[in-house]
Amino acid sequence: MDWIPGRIPVLECLRARKRKAHKLFLLEGAKGLESFRAVAGDVPIVECARAELDRLLPHALHQGVLLQADPVPILNADAWSRSAFEDDCVIVALDGVEDPHNFGAIVRSAAACGARAVMFAKDRSAPVSPAAVKSAAGGMEYIDLVQAANLVRSIDALKQAGFWVAALHADAPQPIWEADLTGRVVIVIGGEGKGIRRLVNERADFHLRIPLTGPITSLNASVSAAIALAECRRQRLTRRAAK
Amino acid sequence: MDWIPGRIPVLECLRARKRKAHKLFLLEGAKGLESFRAVAGDVPIVECARAELDRLLPHALHQGVLLQADPVPILNADAWSRSAFEDDCVIVALDGVEDPHNFGAIVRSAAACGARAVMFAKDRSAPVSPAAVKSAAGGMEYIDLVQAANLVRSIDALKQAGFWVAALHADAPQPIWEADLTGRVVIVIGGEGKGIRRLVNERADFHLRIPLTGPITSLNASVSAAIALAECRRQRLTRRAAK
Repeated sequence: MDWIPGRIPVLECLRARKRKAHKLFLLEGAKGLESFRAVAGDVPIVECARAELDRLLPHALHQGVLLQADPVPILNADAWSRSAFEDDCVIVALDGVEDPHNFGAIVRSAAACGARAVMFAKDRSAPVSPAAVKSAAGGMEYIDLVQAANLVRSIDALKQAGFWVAALHADAPQPIWEADLTGRVVIVIGGEGKGIRRLVNERADFHLRIPLTGPITSLNASVSAAIALAECRRQRLTRRAAK
Repeated sequence: MDWIPGRIPVLECLRARKRKAHKLFLLEGAKGLESFRAVAGDVPIVECARAELDRLLPHALHQGVLLQADPVPILNADAWSRSAFEDDCVIVALDGVEDPHNFGAIVRSAAACGARAVMFAKDRSAPVSPAAVKSAAGGMEYIDLVQAANLVRSIDALKQAGFWVAALHADAPQPIWEADLTGRVVIVIGGEGKGIRRLVNERADFHLRIPLTGPITSLNASVSAAIALAECRRQRLTRRAAK
């Protein structure tokens, strides 16, 4: 069973109905909780004191709202990569993003930019922790979370399914906006310290950089992912408009 | 006096020499600290045990490295807005970004994308806390941090100095990549919950959105700022190339 803290993550979980919600805990006497009652449907609501919420999920910024629900579904990459994909499907593949806030932030940006999935290696990634769920601001409820036992093999399977693979590095030769990122595309983001592993990197069709200037030579992993996702959006919208 | 935790923030502080460093604390016996000794110059180095580092700055991810230095200089907007600005100067103005991690992340992206300054309102913003310094990953050492007693007045002063003002909202009419963001530009980012205040908003020449799709309808403030900064970079580089 998962504990989901915070107003937006709980509201989106109740709205999305991707997973079964079991019990909604609301801070008694708190303001602005009407929307939760409205969307809860037949989920039992428990009103309780702040100390009880703090006890149920210690160290969480619950904002007066906690939800007990089934775990967020984690899909198996081998089975999932045989599913049907839209023609302009975007997938984010994480190779070693270990910080749960970064992981959650990437899921949020992916959901907001219309990506289909965030894929991650089983052995080198942040768990889907309450902190990650909180940072995802509801994004976990809407995109596919896909775990790969072997990320290289799963990327190969997506290439077979017609995806182009774009790897982001600080020192890649091509500016990200010079590549064609329309169509089916996998954006590969490396971990906070070590970047993308060699075997994963060798699968990439494009090696792209976000052209920086100035003394700070790298971006946060979640920021890089968001800039790449926004560039995918820009190309899709401006090319569609040009037709 | 400031305490700066973490390897990258400390290394950049020692490199940038923007503020006086007083004492460098290194975890005794830790690996990978040679670069700190090399760059420390005449700053005294104290080797100490982990417990001592934890005691010096509790709850900080110090990674075995702590620096005691003068506070990061916070510039006064009234005086600063009369300084000389480059023709393609980019400034980020924050109207109510209260989360220190977001604040730090924006400073990092601004420094990486070559922005000149991050300006913030005195009464509605995150302090330059150790958490913000850590998230900025050295960015604090390289860009101007400008505090405005009255953000509206400071934006007006920048308009007088030839800046265009672009406000980012989720529901603005114009996609961000349709506006001309070359030249002198101020990017205005609203706070995590409340967005941009009306009086600040009214100063904007452009109201821009990052065109999202899908069920999640907003981005994190630091992600929005980074996408806007990257778009400024894209326009500067692609238009320069086209000439």
